Amino acid sequence: MRIAILGGTGAMGRLIARELRDDGHEVVITGSNPHTAERVARELDVEAAPTNVDAAKDADVVVVSVPISVTEDVIREVAPHVPEGSLLTDVTSVKVRPVRAMLEHAPEDVYVLGTHPLFGPTVPSLRGQTVILTPTERSGPWTRRVRRYLERKGARVVETTPEEHDRTMAVVQCLTHAVLLAAGAAIGRFLPSLELDIEEVASPVYRLLMDVVGRIAGQDPRLYAEIQAFNPYGDEAREELLRALRRFHEHAHDHNALTEYIAESRERLGRELDLEACQRRTDKLLSYLADELRILQEGIEAILLDVYTNEALEGEVTGDRDTIRLDGRELPRDRYKILPRCPKELAHFDGEVTVLELRTGADPGDVAAVVDALGRNLRALRAERRGERVRVEVEYTGKESLEGLLRKLRALGLEVRVAR
Amino acid sequence: MRIAILGGTGAMGRLIARELRDDGHEVVITGSNPHTAERVARELDVEAAPTNVDAAKDADVVVVSVPISVTEDVIREVAPHVPEGSLLTDVTSVKVRPVRAMLEHAPEDVYVLGTHPLFGPTVPSLRGQTVILTPTERSGPWTRRVRRYLERKGARVVETTPEEHDRTMAVVQCLTHAVLLAAGAAIGRFLPSLELDIEEVASPVYRLLMDVVGRIAGQDPRLYAEIQAFNPYGDEAREELLRALRRFHEHAHDHNALTEYIAESRERLGRELDLEACQRRTDKLLSYLADELRILQEGIEAILLDVYTNEALEGEVTGDRDTIRLDGRELPRDRYKILPRCPKELAHFDGEVTVLELRTGADPGDVAAVVDALGRNLRALRAERRGERVRVEVEYTGKESLEGLLRKLRALGLEVRVAR
Repeated sequence: MRIAILGGTGAMGRLIARELRDDGHEVVITGSNPHTAERVARELDVEAAPTNVDAAKDADVVVVSVPISVTEDVIREVAPHVPEGSLLTDVTSVKVRPVRAMLEHAPEDVYVLGTHPLFGPTVPSLRGQTVILTPTERSGPWTRRVRRYLERKGARVVETTPEEHDRTMAVVQCLTHAVLLAAGAAIGRFLPSLELDIEEVASPVYRLLMDVVGRIAGQDPRLYAEIQAFNPYGDEAREELLRALRRFHEHAHDHNALTEYIAESRERLGRELDLEACQRRTDKLLSYLADELRILQEGIEAILLDVYTNEALEGEVTGDRDTIRLDGRELPRDRYKILPRCPKELAHFDGEVTVLELRTGADPGDVAAVVDALGRNLRALRAERRGERVRVEVEYTGKESLEGLLRKLRALGLEVRVAR
Repeated sequence: MRIAILGGTGAMGRLIARELRDDGHEVVITGSNPHTAERVARELDVEAAPTNVDAAKDADVVVVSVPISVTEDVIREVAPHVPEGSLLTDVTSVKVRPVRAMLEHAPEDVYVLGTHPLFGPTVPSLRGQTVILTPTERSGPWTRRVRRYLERKGARVVETTPEEHDRTMAVVQCLTHAVLLAAGAAIGRFLPSLELDIEEVASPVYRLLMDVVGRIAGQDPRLYAEIQAFNPYGDEAREELLRALRRFHEHAHDHNALTEYIAESRERLGRELDLEACQRRTDKLLSYLADELRILQEGIEAILLDVYTNEALEGEVTGDRDTIRLDGRELPRDRYKILPRCPKELAHFDGEVTVLELRTGADPGDVAAVVDALGRNLRALRAERRGERVRVEVEYTGKESLEGLLRKLRALGLEVRVAR
């Protein structure tokens, strides 16, 4: 199939071009700067067209992948030139306005479908990612075709109307980003005036919020502004938020009134959201970080996994809140997950304790590692050499755990007995 | 020392009473209901006094541990009765107003110190927790005494003025809670009207924010209302937030203006906060959750660690976004961290591949587990039986990794050679 990607020089356009090219399609891209388009086309080994109309006029599918603020202009420009029976689609984060523009400006015999990939251009593949489709009365066979294509690539597809899409995204995106960016703006004004180092006295909730604020604040301001401005339900979402905050503030002078206001909104939210599950989920995240600190402080043998690639580094680690020291090297703590080489080092089993004796010349620490690796629902607490034997103290749950371990050790050729 | 804890029946008061009792102090508690005080005193094996004044009048230390909204009343009531040379202190989340009340109502020869433990009453111990002290010109030797006591228990102590404390907490608590509770109130109004299941199309940022919102919304409304109402800098913090949100909303009708506003606040925030580090830290949290899903979906052998106790469960796990199935049992996913039995199952080493042959009757999977447990900077990719031998394909970084492994396997009595 011949597929035109208008705005194929942007990060998202390039991702789409690569995927379609890999699937054997004939891809032609355009860009606001024709020289850039030619360079990117060479890099991607696809075609470049000098204008959007040139790219669109003989394509089976035309994908509009330009910034939200120019999407309607580009649609107005190319829609009349899309061939009969072809598909015109866009991939922006809003759907009402682009879909309306496509329906208005494309000839009756051109198919129209709205698409919103719920991921950024840095994903390694489409596997596990979600794509929303907003079919219209003029999507014809293309809804099914696009869905099949995406599902074959491992993506999840959700179908809805352009209106319902934008209403939902007004919460997921407009309201969420407005909260976070306004919080960032306000906090950014306070921080310089504080004398106390806020890191010294920050609560886990403040830290979590600031990490999410910083994550959003670090993105492209234009994209985030356009998501607000071009979603017709954004206004309503921001106004509801303003109203809530204004009420909160008005009540704050009377602690009884504010208590009542908080209790009321909690009750309403609690009908939609399992608040205790929120507590447990955030506790889980904090618990992963607490385990990391424990590993660093107690010198538990660790394996570092790169956050983005899971590439591994092993060795003696120490460190603090910000830094990991691995065999003398300093690494940024936020770049690696810190896991115990053996997760049992962090665990305890609510069971009995016994002692095993193995006749072996191996290092007691290695024997303990083998016990941990082979044993199920048990862990080695301590191991020490006694003459020709290594004694291992074992904590276990259930007799079958212990028996399973003994069988496996003997199958490896080790002489082992239960000492008590 | 004789220590009176006024409000010793509350969760925080009980924690303080237990800690001091364990350290050998003579503890006397009071409560708004004298019967409750007597019952709790029996449970804790400490004394109860019928009134606050009775408890305070012969104490070496008087700790006011009542709700913020009645703290000043209780101070006014008991301060005149605190003995000469004793310490009067409070443990609320605001410091300006309680410290001012203590200085005003306690006789000149009574020592006064503000205290803010930055943790809730559910912590297992004080180890690693932070306590803020706000000494006054009338704290005398008690700042040092309290600091030493807390540090001996493993707590971190930060000293500042009551004003600086409240200014900082206006950001860490007032602004942070206001953002989250207002977001919860607004989102709670939208969710019932959405037809699309928001869970289906939620972004990672929306999920993270909602988990933090739900965590705060699930707490005691009274405490959160009082923290807002009794911090003299709370007003300013909420007003700055309102101003930021109002500006954001006003600009949202013109995407260029909003882009500029977002870029400006980003620049200001970026001077105080490493935005890229925020991205990496949140990516790390998401990566832990992605690893969990991978373990569940790929059937990687797992160990479940209880989020609160690190008590461990092992076995075959499968599951989905909400549920873990362990050997047929269903468990809530938010209650357990899901770690691979061997973290190397998630990892890859950027190195070479070779094949080892071991003469052993053991199960090939167990041999691979032993290789993973003993090898450093290497992992077993595959293991299979070939007659009397088990062949293990190994990915390793650096010759010394491979040699170290061979040494350890031989020390265990295993016959092993490099096959290619």
